[in-house]
Amino acid sequence: MSAFEVGEWGVINLIWSRLKRDPLEVLGLDDVVARRIGGGKLLVAHVDTLSQSTDVLPGMTPHSIGFKSVVMNVSDMAAKGVEPLGMLFSLGLPSDYPLTSVAEIAEGWRDATSKYGIYVWGGDITESRELMVTGAIIGLAPEGRVVGRRGARPGDLIACMGSFGLTSVAYMILLEGKKTRFKAVEERAKRAVYYPKAYLKEGIRLARLRVLTASMDSSDGLAWSLHTISSLNNVGIELTNIPVPREVLAYADEHGLDPYELALYGGEEYSLVFTMRPDGLDLLPNSLRRRVTVMGKLTRDKKIRLIVEGSERIIEPRGWEHFKR
Amino acid sequence: MSAFEVGEWGVINLIWSRLKRDPLEVLGLDDVVARRIGGGKLLVAHVDTLSQSTDVLPGMTPHSIGFKSVVMNVSDMAAKGVEPLGMLFSLGLPSDYPLTSVAEIAEGWRDATSKYGIYVWGGDITESRELMVTGAIIGLAPEGRVVGRRGARPGDLIACMGSFGLTSVAYMILLEGKKTRFKAVEERAKRAVYYPKAYLKEGIRLARLRVLTASMDSSDGLAWSLHTISSLNNVGIELTNIPVPREVLAYADEHGLDPYELALYGGEEYSLVFTMRPDGLDLLPNSLRRRVTVMGKLTRDKKIRLIVEGSERIIEPRGWEHFKR
Repeated sequence: MSAFEVGEWGVINLIWSRLKRDPLEVLGLDDVVARRIGGGKLLVAHVDTLSQSTDVLPGMTPHSIGFKSVVMNVSDMAAKGVEPLGMLFSLGLPSDYPLTSVAEIAEGWRDATSKYGIYVWGGDITESRELMVTGAIIGLAPEGRVVGRRGARPGDLIACMGSFGLTSVAYMILLEGKKTRFKAVEERAKRAVYYPKAYLKEGIRLARLRVLTASMDSSDGLAWSLHTISSLNNVGIELTNIPVPREVLAYADEHGLDPYELALYGGEEYSLVFTMRPDGLDLLPNSLRRRVTVMGKLTRDKKIRLIVEGSERIIEPRGWEHFKR
Repeated sequence: MSAFEVGEWGVINLIWSRLKRDPLEVLGLDDVVARRIGGGKLLVAHVDTLSQSTDVLPGMTPHSIGFKSVVMNVSDMAAKGVEPLGMLFSLGLPSDYPLTSVAEIAEGWRDATSKYGIYVWGGDITESRELMVTGAIIGLAPEGRVVGRRGARPGDLIACMGSFGLTSVAYMILLEGKKTRFKAVEERAKRAVYYPKAYLKEGIRLARLRVLTASMDSSDGLAWSLHTISSLNNVGIELTNIPVPREVLAYADEHGLDPYELALYGGEEYSLVFTMRPDGLDLLPNSLRRRVTVMGKLTRDKKIRLIVEGSERIIEPRGWEHFKR
């Protein structure tokens, strides 16, 4: 049996079963690892790889590849409320890869790390069959401040920072050739995949307020995030609202698509998905509350559903990969 | 111009020129990054990648790939005298890569990390065109304890922990088909490349004694390490002794090769190459002194040479890659 027949989680579980646990690591399988280092502090780290064949969309420049490889790592720290300090990169380069493109990747790293107030410290270079950009991000956090994927209870609110659907629109335009006549739609969708945004300041502020009970990013799509939170916390989720940008609504209308399908089953959308105690919203300062969207609540039954316009639908455990087939 | 026409250092310098420096990082271009985190402590980290097409030798099992991907990272921490805490891995897998081999890689990680008293904390998986194993290793060290590549002065001793030449013999057997009739030679050479050893305990003890003035590992070959130490410290190096295992001598004799060529121009040999103040050897406890080989001394002129059996030769700035052509 090959690795991909059992899916990414099958492979992760197989590897995990072969390893010994560090008794000082506090999260287990989560967006990041967090390891006690004494003095009430946690060392927090994460790695993420972008590969030419699976992650580079048509029209992506080397600068955007560099930029995105930072954002995808920063986003996991954001979801945990952890301030990153810096990154290392391992760069796999085909032997004929242009030197000017390497420089552009580095400029993408520089621009994205500057944006999030961190640095690229160093890394290594290997010759490889395709471009591979692996980022390792490291930060520190006080113990008890890191928001894991576990801790949500029935009755908690489920909420988000950011919106959903733009990356699905970009995939349909770039990968399936379903163009749009609205220039603004195309531009915003492309920007969402070429230059995504991580909600770092927001994630750190939310974690400091201690109102979150669980949190993760939506890099595998909103539906996957919901299913992960549900299964790890043994709760159901009832959504009544998903923030969908008007560009997604316009595109869905143009092509006769369901905007909620676009919002639920996308990916590489680095919005934060989190749960809060029932009174959590009242505890947020105005400036933050305005930007948080309450999407629904957690339930005792194990259903994961969306109720909009009087009809209920089950949210399936799939992301973009399955949607497109 | 493509990335590999300017060589690895050309690419690294190009990238480095595009990035901003973290004012809290204390080493610059070195085996690891070391960043002040307050309380007199440094966060120390390093990444290293092993790729199927450039690093996997004939006969390497997935277990040995996993094992070696740990050792190559541990070795850089060893050279700096830093105790690592744990590792993350990013695993790039071709879609048809067997699941049993993934499990074996994980077992290699487990066995090697156990050997060095650390843990695999987590990581990520990506689909890629060839197997890519990127390890990120993280540790902490007191400020002033990390031994950089800079700090050596004329008159210092140049010494090593470990020996040189076995990996060159392995390359000749495995890549060039130059077999040996001595079974013990073949076995020891293969073991050196399939299951290399990092001198972690030894590196940490040496750093604690504060007798080293500069240190690095010899993963690109002894000659490269010597040239790096020479150019960063503006010193010459006069070697009068290189520790070469008898298996390398036997193989050289069998094939009419120069054993010093094998020792100098190899690679993936994780011996430690370091410089010590002139009285450094006397300051080592017996148990450690026995295992350190003084190879020569640093000079004011900029020559890098080996003087053995009354003749002098210039040591060239090349490793295995060039040697084999």
